[in-house]
Amino acid sequence: MKLSAILNNNCHINKKYLNKAKKHTEKLIMPHRAMGKLHNTAEKICAIRKTLKPDVDKRAIFIMVGDHGIVNEGVSSYPQEVTLQMVNAFLNEEATVNVLAKQAKADVIVTDVGSFCTVENVNITDHNIFLQKKISRGTKNFLKEPAMSYKQAIKSIEIGFEVTNKYIIEKELNLIAAGDMGIGNTTSSSAIGAVISGQGVEKLTGSGSGIDEKKLALKINIIKSAIKLHNPDKNDAIDILSKIGGFEIGAIAGSILAAAYNNIPIIIDGIISTSAALIAYTLKKEVSDYMIAGHMSTEPGHRIMLEYLKINPLLSLDMRLGEGTGALIAMHIIESAVKITTDVATFEEAGISTKNK
Amino acid sequence: MKLSAILNNNCHINKKYLNKAKKHTEKLIMPHRAMGKLHNTAEKICAIRKTLKPDVDKRAIFIMVGDHGIVNEGVSSYPQEVTLQMVNAFLNEEATVNVLAKQAKADVIVTDVGSFCTVENVNITDHNIFLQKKISRGTKNFLKEPAMSYKQAIKSIEIGFEVTNKYIIEKELNLIAAGDMGIGNTTSSSAIGAVISGQGVEKLTGSGSGIDEKKLALKINIIKSAIKLHNPDKNDAIDILSKIGGFEIGAIAGSILAAAYNNIPIIIDGIISTSAALIAYTLKKEVSDYMIAGHMSTEPGHRIMLEYLKINPLLSLDMRLGEGTGALIAMHIIESAVKITTDVATFEEAGISTKNK
Repeated sequence: MKLSAILNNNCHINKKYLNKAKKHTEKLIMPHRAMGKLHNTAEKICAIRKTLKPDVDKRAIFIMVGDHGIVNEGVSSYPQEVTLQMVNAFLNEEATVNVLAKQAKADVIVTDVGSFCTVENVNITDHNIFLQKKISRGTKNFLKEPAMSYKQAIKSIEIGFEVTNKYIIEKELNLIAAGDMGIGNTTSSSAIGAVISGQGVEKLTGSGSGIDEKKLALKINIIKSAIKLHNPDKNDAIDILSKIGGFEIGAIAGSILAAAYNNIPIIIDGIISTSAALIAYTLKKEVSDYMIAGHMSTEPGHRIMLEYLKINPLLSLDMRLGEGTGALIAMHIIESAVKITTDVATFEEAGISTKNK
Repeated sequence: MKLSAILNNNCHINKKYLNKAKKHTEKLIMPHRAMGKLHNTAEKICAIRKTLKPDVDKRAIFIMVGDHGIVNEGVSSYPQEVTLQMVNAFLNEEATVNVLAKQAKADVIVTDVGSFCTVENVNITDHNIFLQKKISRGTKNFLKEPAMSYKQAIKSIEIGFEVTNKYIIEKELNLIAAGDMGIGNTTSSSAIGAVISGQGVEKLTGSGSGIDEKKLALKINIIKSAIKLHNPDKNDAIDILSKIGGFEIGAIAGSILAAAYNNIPIIIDGIISTSAALIAYTLKKEVSDYMIAGHMSTEPGHRIMLEYLKINPLLSLDMRLGEGTGALIAMHIIESAVKITTDVATFEEAGISTKNK
């Protein structure tokens, strides 16, 4: 589907169900909203799914893969070949994301939208899928030129939408998560976060996979220089994505649009998928109603970006891995939240005395 | 078993396995300790279980029930009969704790150590058990006299130990959670927290199940008066428990001692089970090595008490229900933590490049 058609779709959530769900929460046998954030999460899902009995049992994580020309500037602590090696680990079900997906009973759908290397010997099962949708072998070095063309930026979103939409329909998914792989992609994410939030690059840039202070200073300077060079328009998500973005970031934005298009919730992971969430939100404000922030990572920009989106993270476990790992861990909490709404008795059903007057 | 014998048992964890587990974490295909708190949790369990391949698949929650004479002073927003009604809800599998236990595949073991009412029509299954071990029909009003005798305080701990120890052995449990039910028990818990931590009553006292500001001021004054009246010895846990405690709080302390005795981890829930953790810790310092703090509740005293125990909570979801609900939600996170240690490939196994030098 063309991006213009995707953006024309009406995806406003149903506020009537939000209010109905809030009223139902009051009836549950517990003090007023005693399960805190779980109530907010469940009520949001009721509104997304237009029911007080939502299911969240058909799950998948969509991992988008891309490489980044900016790694030539020395912004990462790992060599670029690790992107391919990690894709192989995903397909051999050896990585953290696989272990957590198995626990959460979520299918793993890996899409190469722009990795540098060639993925071979692909081991595909019904629950572990690989798709080759490469737009280009990595982005250009955005310190010197735009990361990709305007057309490629649109294409990356359309591919993410297409893949996600296809499997939501085929597998009748009702809860999906956003994942990423790409050496160098925190640099791109922090740059996007700085442009869209309007906050200082220093506040949004962290050590990623673990660079030292000297490399962090370099990373900050590179992002500042790139923003100065390209001067992206903060209201034009495609302009931002093409100048300082990544193919996998565009594709994750496409996953988010596909979740909203199909009226299902999508769990956002760390700073990479949150930068994609900023791109999707800039394109279409309503999509933030479909986002659940799985966790807050240790990357300093993550908090600022989640605050900009006005979504409150469920977990804060000092994690900084990416891959979608924080989103998968949050799936259990989301299941708890929904089951409390659907399965706990009401005061009336259980014959329990209400509060003293 | 007599309390003196329980306390004589050597339950030091094996630091060798803590170090072995930390070394293993470094080998996993991810940046240095990129899963944050999950690594600490898994390593702690490796040390408790003396293996790098611990299982956390056989689970139960032990809910201890007791009533509190102090409710006659108007410190709670719910009538005392709710304790019994909630026990009936537990046994009919209608309560939040049941829904979450089912999701976490944990058995529910409810023990009445001191409820005011008589529990009848008990519905027991292999996975939902009720035990009648009542010491007395509620504690005395500790604003006027000690909550219970010194002997009863010891008895409450012994009962908690006995029940928990029995089912750990019978069901070969490897992960247990602490739960509570008792109208009025946040008053007792805050009082215990204030005495043991040495911090001000105001800082440790909250609105419990939802009292207003006026009742909160009353609750604070009652706790202050009771501490002044009884002057409990902060180094004598039995003195504290007998003067301002509760039967269920003593029994939860017994659960904690039983976990340490059997070398398995126990997940602490909210302010009630954390006050029991303070009692157990005052009796035997080593037991804190077996505690995992499931979450931090909105009760202001909870943070202070967890800091005193030097245990870092996994979740912070603005919850304040008790029953063991926070502990059960944390079970999924603990499973994730352990599976990352046991199932994620190492750099060597996956053939992945390590960090740039």
